[in-house]
Amino acid sequence: MRKLISGFSKLTKDEKITWLIENYLQDQSEAENVIKQYWNHQQDLQELHDGFIENTISNFYMPFGIAPNFIINGDAFVIPMVIEESSVVAAASLVGKFWSTRGGFKTTVLGTTKIGQVHFMYAGSQTEIEAYFNKIKTDLFAATASITKNMEKRGGGILDIKLVDKTEKLANYYQLHVTFETKDSMGANFINSCLEAIAKKFETAEIEIVMSILSNSVPECLVRAEVSCKIEELGGENPQKFAEKFYQAVKIATIEPYRAVTHNKGIMNGIDAVVLATGNDFRAVEAGAHSYASRSGEYTSLSHCEIKDGIFKFWIEVPLAIGTVGGLTALHPMAKLSLEMLQNPSANMLMQIIAAAGLAQNFAALRALTTKGIQHGHMKMHLQNILNQFEANDEEKESVTTYFNKKTVTHSAVVAKIQSLRKPKTN
Amino acid sequence: MRKLISGFSKLTKDEKITWLIENYLQDQSEAENVIKQYWNHQQDLQELHDGFIENTISNFYMPFGIAPNFIINGDAFVIPMVIEESSVVAAASLVGKFWSTRGGFKTTVLGTTKIGQVHFMYAGSQTEIEAYFNKIKTDLFAATASITKNMEKRGGGILDIKLVDKTEKLANYYQLHVTFETKDSMGANFINSCLEAIAKKFETAEIEIVMSILSNSVPECLVRAEVSCKIEELGGENPQKFAEKFYQAVKIATIEPYRAVTHNKGIMNGIDAVVLATGNDFRAVEAGAHSYASRSGEYTSLSHCEIKDGIFKFWIEVPLAIGTVGGLTALHPMAKLSLEMLQNPSANMLMQIIAAAGLAQNFAALRALTTKGIQHGHMKMHLQNILNQFEANDEEKESVTTYFNKKTVTHSAVVAKIQSLRKPKTN
Repeated sequence: MRKLISGFSKLTKDEKITWLIENYLQDQSEAENVIKQYWNHQQDLQELHDGFIENTISNFYMPFGIAPNFIINGDAFVIPMVIEESSVVAAASLVGKFWSTRGGFKTTVLGTTKIGQVHFMYAGSQTEIEAYFNKIKTDLFAATASITKNMEKRGGGILDIKLVDKTEKLANYYQLHVTFETKDSMGANFINSCLEAIAKKFETAEIEIVMSILSNSVPECLVRAEVSCKIEELGGENPQKFAEKFYQAVKIATIEPYRAVTHNKGIMNGIDAVVLATGNDFRAVEAGAHSYASRSGEYTSLSHCEIKDGIFKFWIEVPLAIGTVGGLTALHPMAKLSLEMLQNPSANMLMQIIAAAGLAQNFAALRALTTKGIQHGHMKMHLQNILNQFEANDEEKESVTTYFNKKTVTHSAVVAKIQSLRKPKTN
Repeated sequence: MRKLISGFSKLTKDEKITWLIENYLQDQSEAENVIKQYWNHQQDLQELHDGFIENTISNFYMPFGIAPNFIINGDAFVIPMVIEESSVVAAASLVGKFWSTRGGFKTTVLGTTKIGQVHFMYAGSQTEIEAYFNKIKTDLFAATASITKNMEKRGGGILDIKLVDKTEKLANYYQLHVTFETKDSMGANFINSCLEAIAKKFETAEIEIVMSILSNSVPECLVRAEVSCKIEELGGENPQKFAEKFYQAVKIATIEPYRAVTHNKGIMNGIDAVVLATGNDFRAVEAGAHSYASRSGEYTSLSHCEIKDGIFKFWIEVPLAIGTVGGLTALHPMAKLSLEMLQNPSANMLMQIIAAAGLAQNFAALRALTTKGIQHGHMKMHLQNILNQFEANDEEKESVTTYFNKKTVTHSAVVAKIQSLRKPKTN
């Protein structure tokens, strides 16, 4: 059996790597090479990155790409995107450009309220817990004073604390449902620290706190992005036909969950790429977006389309709890650069930029799907990746690319073709 | 106004960077420094990474950490994790170790079926479309022969094609609902290529194909991971009390969507970290998991807890469409290393490892939340990151860490403390 270990976290980085390689990897010198070839040559910079999490042994490169030509509410943006999937940045760039000559993206923040809850058990009477809550409510706010002081200076803080009776769903279960405004910070640490202080103050011999934690369900931290133009301005061979088919595709995502999930996955390709690039937490954003998509009881599309009076309109409403201060935003040099590239936006502005990126991605996917199919662009890129993997030279690249121009690209077919080119001629 | 540009994708990487810096960044030499300090010194390696997506200008470092001591079905694993959030790898390591002496993780794959759909419009009679489908079904399989040939050799392929009438939801809307087995590959390209070939064959003057695309909703590509032990083996001061409170916390996530979303977000912290490390697509996995959590009509917990006959049992069931061949898995050297570290698992085995990582993360979060609160560990790490940002020396680090031992960590409070230490003494 492979080995277990005690005190691993106390080992140095080099000791961790040695242990890993000796116990879990076959080609030991090759493995060490791979791990260390990704270390930054500037020791202090590498130490900064090592410190972000625990047991760090190397850096995982995610490609950092940029999509220019986004017009959002009249201003031009270059959007930074961190994503490993090919075609996403290309699609964003194409669609950014496409809408730049058709009025660009119109975006609005619909709300910025965030949510946290203190979950507790109480076996006494409802009247008594209500009376206790009303009596202590002011003290609950006061208990967070040292934490909220700076946030209040920036115009944020705790908006309200409500007592919620959930005993119909689970015996003795109540919540303190707390709403927050966290301005330019994502606010996870702020919210959790407030909630823990509130819980500590609220607790009694009869009130058992189960847990205190923010919610990543943020239906009131919501942003909208929209594009629209006259149908004839959509261009192409038959703009009316294009608009109608596009409308159908969105409609299908509205009523068919199997499609809605993938439709929204495409939106998240654009959203997560900017979330990552700006040092935000994509798991939080994913959880918020998909749960929002399911809020009606049936999982549905986050985007919508309308054709009316000769106007094509396409828009998205999506919850986004992100920040432009705190967390990794200032710590990770590339996240900081992303924000600088976006003209150091407020969190509100970043919500709008991210929503535009999500809508652009969705537009690109639907346009490809309803016209020449999604595989056309994907496989072109996939082919190039395989050629790079086999270190194909320019001549081989051209020959293989031409060969697959009208053929279906599969990994094995490409490998076979490369190998056939490299086979020593026998005649 | 900041500038738009034509032909951006045709520029060289250096030209792209120059244009970006000149038009969108203030401190131009600093920006160039930041971008280029992340380039790999091995030109061919950097070119490989640049080729993964479009308009790449640099690498975004994501920390690559490892969590040792996972016992899964009796075998020991070191789990590779790529994540920017602190505490996740530390939590996984602690929980891996904790369960390693309590029987480890028991995992099972419950299904591996994947789904794709051809969405189409047909205004004729239902009887006629059914007759046409039944007549042409064999030809639809045959139309994919060149694509499925290699997959079939590996034991995969198209499982079935069904005609689904959706006209009650949307006039004239039907689907070909296709199920797939894709073995060790995630299968996105394979499925989409098959669907496009099927659609091309199926299309007639009366059948209008809207789009052909895989679904990221994969409720039958499902894996289960479980831990269990006698309650007294849970350890701590009062294992019975711990088990009961833990059970309550899971129960709350089952009935309260605001909590369920964050509960599952914590699970995804563990899942996505392994998904990323192995070169898989986390947006696909996120979409599948959250939509699965909403399938009953109310968004709910992906994990479950039971206390029965003195046994504590905690498990997760989660859909995971991932691969160990194809895509980036072999192209990205660190993804390849991740798979080697995991003993080059089949996709089935990787599903189980990922599910165990997700369950471990959830166990860690619930244990922290129901005992000393989530902020304790989080803020310790956050504090160290701020100290690194300010390049604190060892003496400053010790002094600040001691100072915040019993105080609430906020960014501004830490900065103030560092600055007070650095202020020249005036006495």
